[in-house]
Amino acid sequence: MSLIVDRRNLSFVLHELLDVAQLFAHERFAAHDREIVDATLDLAESMAENRFLPLAAIADAQEPTFVDGRVRTLPEIKTALTEFAEAGMFAASFSEADGGLQLPWVVTQSAMGIFMAANLPVVNYAFLTIAAANLISVFGSENQRSAFLPPMLEGRWFGTMCLSEPQAGSSLGDITTKATPTGDGQYRISGSKMWISGGDHELSENIVHLVLARIDGAPAGVKGISLFLVPRYRLDSEGRPGQWNNIALAGLNNKMGQRATVNCLLNFGEGGDCIGELVGEPNKGLSNMFHMMNEARVGVGQGAVMLALAGYLNSLSYARERLQGRLPDNKDATSAQVPIIQHADVKRMLLMQKSTVEGALALTTFCALLVDQLRLSTDPTEVEELELLLGVLTPVAKSWPAEHCLEANKWAIQVLGGYGYTVDFPVERLYRDNRLNHIHEGTFGIQGRDLLGRKIRLEDGRGLSLLISRIGSTLAEAQRVPALSSEVEALENALGELKGATNAVIHARDRDVALANATLYLDAFGTIVIAWLWLWQGIVAQEALEKSHVHEGDIAFYRGKVAALHYHFRYVLPQVHATLKLVAALDDTCESMRSDYY
Amino acid sequence: MSLIVDRRNLSFVLHELLDVAQLFAHERFAAHDREIVDATLDLAESMAENRFLPLAAIADAQEPTFVDGRVRTLPEIKTALTEFAEAGMFAASFSEADGGLQLPWVVTQSAMGIFMAANLPVVNYAFLTIAAANLISVFGSENQRSAFLPPMLEGRWFGTMCLSEPQAGSSLGDITTKATPTGDGQYRISGSKMWISGGDHELSENIVHLVLARIDGAPAGVKGISLFLVPRYRLDSEGRPGQWNNIALAGLNNKMGQRATVNCLLNFGEGGDCIGELVGEPNKGLSNMFHMMNEARVGVGQGAVMLALAGYLNSLSYARERLQGRLPDNKDATSAQVPIIQHADVKRMLLMQKSTVEGALALTTFCALLVDQLRLSTDPTEVEELELLLGVLTPVAKSWPAEHCLEANKWAIQVLGGYGYTVDFPVERLYRDNRLNHIHEGTFGIQGRDLLGRKIRLEDGRGLSLLISRIGSTLAEAQRVPALSSEVEALENALGELKGATNAVIHARDRDVALANATLYLDAFGTIVIAWLWLWQGIVAQEALEKSHVHEGDIAFYRGKVAALHYHFRYVLPQVHATLKLVAALDDTCESMRSDYY
Repeated sequence: MSLIVDRRNLSFVLHELLDVAQLFAHERFAAHDREIVDATLDLAESMAENRFLPLAAIADAQEPTFVDGRVRTLPEIKTALTEFAEAGMFAASFSEADGGLQLPWVVTQSAMGIFMAANLPVVNYAFLTIAAANLISVFGSENQRSAFLPPMLEGRWFGTMCLSEPQAGSSLGDITTKATPTGDGQYRISGSKMWISGGDHELSENIVHLVLARIDGAPAGVKGISLFLVPRYRLDSEGRPGQWNNIALAGLNNKMGQRATVNCLLNFGEGGDCIGELVGEPNKGLSNMFHMMNEARVGVGQGAVMLALAGYLNSLSYARERLQGRLPDNKDATSAQVPIIQHADVKRMLLMQKSTVEGALALTTFCALLVDQLRLSTDPTEVEELELLLGVLTPVAKSWPAEHCLEANKWAIQVLGGYGYTVDFPVERLYRDNRLNHIHEGTFGIQGRDLLGRKIRLEDGRGLSLLISRIGSTLAEAQRVPALSSEVEALENALGELKGATNAVIHARDRDVALANATLYLDAFGTIVIAWLWLWQGIVAQEALEKSHVHEGDIAFYRGKVAALHYHFRYVLPQVHATLKLVAALDDTCESMRSDYY
Repeated sequence: MSLIVDRRNLSFVLHELLDVAQLFAHERFAAHDREIVDATLDLAESMAENRFLPLAAIADAQEPTFVDGRVRTLPEIKTALTEFAEAGMFAASFSEADGGLQLPWVVTQSAMGIFMAANLPVVNYAFLTIAAANLISVFGSENQRSAFLPPMLEGRWFGTMCLSEPQAGSSLGDITTKATPTGDGQYRISGSKMWISGGDHELSENIVHLVLARIDGAPAGVKGISLFLVPRYRLDSEGRPGQWNNIALAGLNNKMGQRATVNCLLNFGEGGDCIGELVGEPNKGLSNMFHMMNEARVGVGQGAVMLALAGYLNSLSYARERLQGRLPDNKDATSAQVPIIQHADVKRMLLMQKSTVEGALALTTFCALLVDQLRLSTDPTEVEELELLLGVLTPVAKSWPAEHCLEANKWAIQVLGGYGYTVDFPVERLYRDNRLNHIHEGTFGIQGRDLLGRKIRLEDGRGLSLLISRIGSTLAEAQRVPALSSEVEALENALGELKGATNAVIHARDRDVALANATLYLDAFGTIVIAWLWLWQGIVAQEALEKSHVHEGDIAFYRGKVAALHYHFRYVLPQVHATLKLVAALDDTCESMRSDYY
């Protein structure tokens, strides 16, 4: 069995659940069909398996180093990314006019997911480059597009996002990096940027940094931030990487996981001019950057899912092989030991992983489909609605996987027992890699405030209403399926409690107290969203099982879907009651805690 | 502030909560008083701070290696352990007749805890040696005691426990290591032992392995296992380490954490005779070994608490210093940033850690006090009752910290944001170290079955009744404290649900289904036990606050206690309802899962 992808499930999500073929009716995707989707996934699986996976443990053990002024990475990383580029994977989702393959985002993200499961820290370089190229393609000038997009889409130049600074991590309004007009339409950039993934290396011919900075005299706070395109090497008269742009590596971060991804502190304009170009309008930098951040956030969630998928598949494979102990009713000590997959607690740990991974994958893939629908739509109302819906789902798609897929990785280790704690199996590495996902691209706490403090309030709560209406449609459809009646009731109840808690917060007098439990609210909100996606999957699975012509080999697959749905509804969803009660009560236990009481 | 111990809280637990001075009334401890307790903790704190803590990050980065047939460890590890030995720490809890200081177990364990918070992987060598010496002192012959105890208590010889084999990890009944009588009262040992912590190194003059093996012709399963004392070097005619005993290191395990603790596969009697002595009666090996295992299990729980305590103190210290962002009602972007401890979600993450750590520390310290009471008691009924109570609490004291203190370490990382994910701060290491605690000395699943399948049934459930009666006394006392009335009600309700779930399992027809959710039962059981210990702490804190002469500097401490109690009762305890409902319903979602459905 593959240890990085469950193609049967991926096909279920893309085709049976989300019907991505709907996209091919649109002119932009008219040249594509299901065969092309499958061929893209085949290619991704083969390359991920052969080039990225074998490298994962080695690259984890040999973190990048800074020697003689150069960042050294394993040569195999460059080989893998070059092959990735040559297969057109950087360009896959971009327009043919830009040299892309014009594939739907939901398809290219599914392909990226396979690489993430194989070797997330290495594919991060491509992930960041594609996100940066997307931003340039949306907000860049014609000149910027023509100068930067082709080499980035060919995978010759990589991209980064430079937001945080040593004194301003989550608090972007406090960044101090300066941009001083040079007089010829360009800017001199000076300041330090922290936590820059892919910030310095020799893997690409150039690095295109997208940098948040303040133009001299700009207002304080988030309203004075602009976005700049700052290449590591300035472009020469023929558009090739030329003179070094005075971006100095101040230090590499040595990390618990995701060790193959270079992460560093960069000093811009130290000891010489560092020249950047404004992207988009002045002082609109943060909202433009959020275009990239939202994609990046769903991508972080997807990465969390993929690390958990790899953990699940590894522990499943181990549990089927490893002989240990006997079933409780067998007292014959001389009888043969059984595969541990027969023990109830191992079944539970595997089912927890399956339920978490397949629930969360449905969510991140659904979000990717929304991105496609948003890009295709020309109806302003529809665009607005899709944006609001995606806005509400983004913190969920980022944080629920970061929390629950890390937990899944914890149980993957547990299935392997002592072996799982050694570096001889990948599960401990996957767990370390996954711990980052609650931190970068906006912490869990930031996501909670984004949802409860902002997203559910925007436009009088239309985003939440749109989501509830989607859930309502699924609930209505589920009425057709008697086997799901208790799940329908449970989801309706949970939704009622969510609405109650939301109202309590919105109408609270003391906003600080009301928002104090925002992180818990986000987590419960996510559990309800995942319950919705499980109900949806359950409808598809139950209806498939009830068909007269269901394929023999598919019966176990669909029964597994129903079991994983049961797990979520019986083991996970009931936990939201206590959480939402706490949120609705505006509990101030934490808010009222004083520093000297600790 | 110290980053490894909260002496104010330790003093609260030992003196205000558990009143360890009660022990000094007993003849065995008559020479001691509170000053000696404090002096012991002072010594531990100073040595842990100066010798063990500075070594923790270095020893993590430089895992032991196997070079030229020798295990190499950092020289500083030996220095630290030698100083530990010279201070009498190995011998502290043993009788003066054996060369010990005859201190109460609860005191020496509290001192050990400080070392664990500083550097658990290094102090593991001492922990294992003390546990092995305890076993020899209880079950060894007079000759074994006089030959092995003195050098072990002087810290010159270390000890191990050798249970698992490559084909038998959790399933001890399947071990195959053989013990063949030599004819002169000794045994030739042959077989492989896996996961041996401290199994091979040059840190001590000898290593005393306590090995489970089967005497030729012994019955199959757990009833045919005997316990052997097998030294790395056989003793010469003067009792000194002499000829090598043919115990070969087959390989070191490279681990995610606890990297300074050598862990290995040992082959006994490969290529030459390996001679061991029987300890205790033949075929009673497993139950004798469990004497050591129970202590070791509570010790594992205590280790989990201490890793979480270190994480808590580090993140608390960081949160008080680190400036970032502003409070939600402050929209002035030019105003100064605040310490992050003022943000509600950071307060929550710190309070979660405080509540978890201080709740769990009360439990493991209470268990240590029970060990003292058990050792002192001469009344057979009391001995039996203490054994039953400790038996029920042992899986809880091991597993609840392993689960929730790991979670606490997760939030310690989160408080530090990106910095927490780097090796520049200890929190990521503490998290990695803590992940082992659900695995060794009996996995989470094994502990769950031990509690639900065995401990609560022993002697018609007397162990559980004794615990419930202790909880009842605390509930009755809490009636005196009006401020705790809602907590009293909540704990009574939870206890009622626990009894209901327990009865449902005990009376279930299908034992396999009834035990399928044993792990969840254990976790909920633990949360209720911790609620009891919080209520108990709450009574002490509230009564102290209501005294007229409460010391000014103590007010914040006691208020913090009450806040941490509120956290457990409001954020954690309510989660048990859903879990116990599932257990009571004998839910078979996991048990009925088939291997081909995954």
